[in-house]
Amino acid sequence: MTAMSFANSPAATFERSDSFVSYASPAIVSPDVFERTGRAAATRGEIAVELELRHSGRRNLILRYETQGDRNLPALFVAGGISAHRHLAPSREFGEQGWWQSQVGHGRSLDPSQHYLISFDWIGADGTLDVALDPADQADAIAALLDALRIERLQAFIGYSYGAMVGLQFASRHASRLGELVSISGTHRAHPYAAAWRALQRRAVALGALQCDESQGLALARELAVLSYRTPEEFAERFGNAEVRDGRVRVAAEDYLDHCGNKYVARTPTTAFLRLSESIDLQQIDPSTIRVPVTVVAVSEDRLIPLSESYDLIERLRGETRLRVLRSIYGHDACLKEESDINTILREALADCTQVAA
Amino acid sequence: MTAMSFANSPAATFERSDSFVSYASPAIVSPDVFERTGRAAATRGEIAVELELRHSGRRNLILRYETQGDRNLPALFVAGGISAHRHLAPSREFGEQGWWQSQVGHGRSLDPSQHYLISFDWIGADGTLDVALDPADQADAIAALLDALRIERLQAFIGYSYGAMVGLQFASRHASRLGELVSISGTHRAHPYAAAWRALQRRAVALGALQCDESQGLALARELAVLSYRTPEEFAERFGNAEVRDGRVRVAAEDYLDHCGNKYVARTPTTAFLRLSESIDLQQIDPSTIRVPVTVVAVSEDRLIPLSESYDLIERLRGETRLRVLRSIYGHDACLKEESDINTILREALADCTQVAA
Repeated sequence: MTAMSFANSPAATFERSDSFVSYASPAIVSPDVFERTGRAAATRGEIAVELELRHSGRRNLILRYETQGDRNLPALFVAGGISAHRHLAPSREFGEQGWWQSQVGHGRSLDPSQHYLISFDWIGADGTLDVALDPADQADAIAALLDALRIERLQAFIGYSYGAMVGLQFASRHASRLGELVSISGTHRAHPYAAAWRALQRRAVALGALQCDESQGLALARELAVLSYRTPEEFAERFGNAEVRDGRVRVAAEDYLDHCGNKYVARTPTTAFLRLSESIDLQQIDPSTIRVPVTVVAVSEDRLIPLSESYDLIERLRGETRLRVLRSIYGHDACLKEESDINTILREALADCTQVAA
Repeated sequence: MTAMSFANSPAATFERSDSFVSYASPAIVSPDVFERTGRAAATRGEIAVELELRHSGRRNLILRYETQGDRNLPALFVAGGISAHRHLAPSREFGEQGWWQSQVGHGRSLDPSQHYLISFDWIGADGTLDVALDPADQADAIAALLDALRIERLQAFIGYSYGAMVGLQFASRHASRLGELVSISGTHRAHPYAAAWRALQRRAVALGALQCDESQGLALARELAVLSYRTPEEFAERFGNAEVRDGRVRVAAEDYLDHCGNKYVARTPTTAFLRLSESIDLQQIDPSTIRVPVTVVAVSEDRLIPLSESYDLIERLRGETRLRVLRSIYGHDACLKEESDINTILREALADCTQVAA
């Protein structure tokens, strides 16, 4: 678990983004440019690495990252769910909406004027890597990215959902590079029930593929996933009764679910969904191999991660631990919706971390 | 709500079963035969009725029923989920396995030597009725069946899942014919979250139908339904970790789910699944219209019916009520799996009912 599989691979190389036409980026700044220009509010870059993947051997990969803040500030790695990506929040350089702008930005809990924020696109997210991907592979890819960025150590790894799973892997495999882990709605092992739910989402994709129309299968898969991310409590507040329309029954949440499915299909390669969904199910890590301080944030209504799993995780970790249990009608999505609670938790965790470092 | 829509329809007629070739029955006994022969342990029959359906107007329907026990004993109507049917348990006449043989049989809680047990196949279950079906329609069909069988009054209606929803409708619409209702894992309104879950099951069927192979879509729908009937607690006890097989991830529950899907497809017309699944979502009844005694049996782990729904139901009922809350890792399926608890509950309910009658 401690050997870094990429340690003996050729040195990571920086490449210009325009050689990777499959990824649309408004602007790319390679790290050397960024070093020349001094402080940059946000940068993007891509690096090529060779990595030993756990289930499919040695592969050449492109890692697409984004940073915000001055690189001399304490570094934070920030990672979200399988549909998250490197763009956390709008910046002067990259103005589009990010997936976590409620927490990331000047004056927010993850503040680029206080920290050097690093994020990347999951390996497999561009849909070109059609192999089984382990969360440990993602952790090793992050270590390789830090090598390339010449970042020796992270003050903290902030992971949510799949990002928390990868954070646990990183804490176990690359402990010397990490001050603290904040693991939000993540776990050390995929729960068999949640895994079954995801397997059926992948069946929906396979069913769609049989008729040469992957988009409908992928949309259905996403709709099933959304159901698992949310809760009966929220749906009860939000949706009313079913209706008979043209002789068919239509339930109140169908318009919302359709919207979620269609939006997802427009931005997600089917292979990316399949391989990253599978990757969640491969999560297996012994918490006793983790000795860095960990803040475990659990949500009692989470339908993918029963609270008992978070208790088990916290009991088996070997370093300092802190448990925060939220109640939220948003279930697994609470991290994105309960802005105030998450803000407080992140500020506390980073403040403690800074005190330890001081 | 109190008007019986079939009251002015032509008198129900008895017909011989062999005119309905779509339903495989080892033997059919029409009620008049059964009356001639005196006490019969079990009978089957079919009657034709004309019924005003709530969403699609007047229809000619065939009601296929089964009875066990002497018709002079107190009558019980017994109804299960949408995939349940008239055959509750093996009898001398009909030896095949039934869907509720843990409770039905000599010496069991629903004992044909103590009660005249009546059950039927849901309207729509044979797949020939492709219209929106309301749970209220099923209740009216049961009333029409009781007319045909010349049963004025039921000592109790024992309903589980969809059967409990129909039982609540029967208690509201045909109160004078009912002594007591036992409503197990049922509710007065479809929960919007559970409804969404079912709507996505129907989407899976639609996706399969696009390639003229309904069976795969129906199998996936059933697998999704099974997931909703069971719980993370059970899956955690029963299933282990995912594996990579031939480069693909296979989760531990997939063999079990495949088995459930294939078994269901072999015995279920697609139209029957779609229309009965929809029917659950049409459940809407004001509990204050119910004044007969009701025993509400809820399961705290049920993922389709939150406990708060059962509390709401019991608070709003107007007659005598009794609440029984079970804890069970089988969730919505507890009624079929927690044999001892359900046995006790049914015996208590029927004993009270008999005391009231005495």
